[in-house]
Amino acid sequence: MHDAKQMLQTHPRPVEMDLSLLAQAIEELSHCAQSCTACADACLGENQLDMLRQCIRLCLDCADVCATTGRVATRQTETQWHLLHSQLRACITACQLCGAECARHAQHHEHCRICTEVCQRCEASCTRLLEAIERTLKDPA
Amino acid sequence: MHDAKQMLQTHPRPVEMDLSLLAQAIEELSHCAQSCTACADACLGENQLDMLRQCIRLCLDCADVCATTGRVATRQTETQWHLLHSQLRACITACQLCGAECARHAQHHEHCRICTEVCQRCEASCTRLLEAIERTLKDPA
Amino acid sequence: MHDAKQMLQTHPRPVEMDLSLLAQAIEELSHCAQSCTACADACLGENQLDMLRQCIRLCLDCADVCATTGRVATRQTETQWHLLHSQLRACITACQLCGAECARHAQHHEHCRICTEVCQRCEASCTRLLEAIERTLKDPA
Amino acid sequence: MHDAKQMLQTHPRPVEMDLSLLAQAIEELSHCAQSCTACADACLGENQLDMLRQCIRLCLDCADVCATTGRVATRQTETQWHLLHSQLRACITACQLCGAECARHAQHHEHCRICTEVCQRCEASCTRLLEAIERTLKDPA
Repeated sequence: MHDAKQMLQTHPRPVEMDLSLLAQAIEELSHCAQSCTACADACLGENQLDMLRQCIRLCLDCADVCATTGRVATRQTETQWHLLHSQLRACITACQLCGAECARHAQHHEHCRICTEVCQRCEASCTRLLEAIERTLKDPA
Repeated sequence: MHDAKQMLQTHPRPVEMDLSLLAQAIEELSHCAQSCTACADACLGENQLDMLRQCIRLCLDCADVCATTGRVATRQTETQWHLLHSQLRACITACQLCGAECARHAQHHEHCRICTEVCQRCEASCTRLLEAIERTLKDPA
Repeated sequence: MHDAKQMLQTHPRPVEMDLSLLAQAIEELSHCAQSCTACADACLGENQLDMLRQCIRLCLDCADVCATTGRVATRQTETQWHLLHSQLRACITACQLCGAECARHAQHHEHCRICTEVCQRCEASCTRLLEAIERTLKDPA
Repeated sequence: MHDAKQMLQTHPRPVEMDLSLLAQAIEELSHCAQSCTACADACLGENQLDMLRQCIRLCLDCADVCATTGRVATRQTETQWHLLHSQLRACITACQLCGAECARHAQHHEHCRICTEVCQRCEASCTRLLEAIERTLKDPA
């Protein structure tokens, strides 16, 4: 998935943001959307389904929110940074809730353990991007 | 699209929110996702494409954000209201930006005029739901 | 949701398809995506969750497939009709499978009964559009 | 993105398919959805926008179709292989059309050149998975 950065580098307009930071967030978001879809489905196949309702629900939300956040972050033509900022905030909340719920099942289900890690990495990447946007918005070039 | 409310009424768990308010937001979100996809595409078919870059970009963002917000709002099993709250905030920003940009082209393009109205209705519905969630979070039953 | 037709009517390029047929399919697809998301979630909240795995899984698939098919059908700039044709075939399969599975639970769960009807309406609309595209592809103007 | 395979390996039910093949398709689909979203946006920022309408439109379609195909392929609880088969056929068509159109602009736009390659890789991966499903459906264990 090294192409997110490559694609950003070929954009006709100069990207007004640290490219590595942006590319990493886009890749983690894509990754997290995939892992959460997989974890929701793996939970649905488990025997003790009753305990996994919350986990399935949050994985479904987190997959949708990450997919949309990744698309908004990818687009660099006429960017409205405060929209991406607001969407990143929602995404960080989704990753926190989903990661915390998956962590509760990590000892019993390996897919939950992996998904916890992916959510945490995505949350960290989104937070770094959020902070970079806040610096840019406060201090416009 | 009167079925969003019907579906909420048949949910096995009592929905902890004004059902009409929630159903209306879900319907407007679905509606706005469709209109923004259509408006981005209609803009792409216009002669004076150069002036419509911002409009296309915001319509694409708004379509994605509304679709995801609608899914998070639809789910009522083990709801984490502050995730929906945060996603609604991003969505209100998306509808405001997209509606304002479409309004700039409303005199020349009928699809932009319609899309402005749909964005404004969606923004109003999401704002009412946001406020209802804030009342619930402050004053839990 | 009467705006799908309105939006198509304001498209700068003449839509090469029966507008009412196309608009109806777009609306049913949007509707079915919403109902399937709601039914998957309502199933997840039921007591006898174990019997509803297949239903949840197919509702999630059908929601995703309908949402994407609706977007491809909405776009009318430089349309490649055989892509929409192929996507409609996948969507008809999704609606058939999901509708049939929901029908098995319709007596016990009202949300499954409603979702069956929505899937059947969507399947019928998509089939009519598929047939219209086949007539157009065979007999290009 | 090596986690798609890891997630499949931790699924509670035995996956009825060559795991490497399935994981590779899921990764390429995720990748292609991201690249097509990026290419549509980069095209929207180009000066000679008029010549890129078809490319933007097909990139938007291909991004949506790949994202949905990736989700259907990821789910392995109660899989209906002919639904995935049908969705893969639509996706192969989308990748072919989008890759061919991007190839027409590859000399002038580096993002189109990269996107061509990603579409071709995704098409190849989906075709291998499609053929594996056809062998399985003909010769059920």
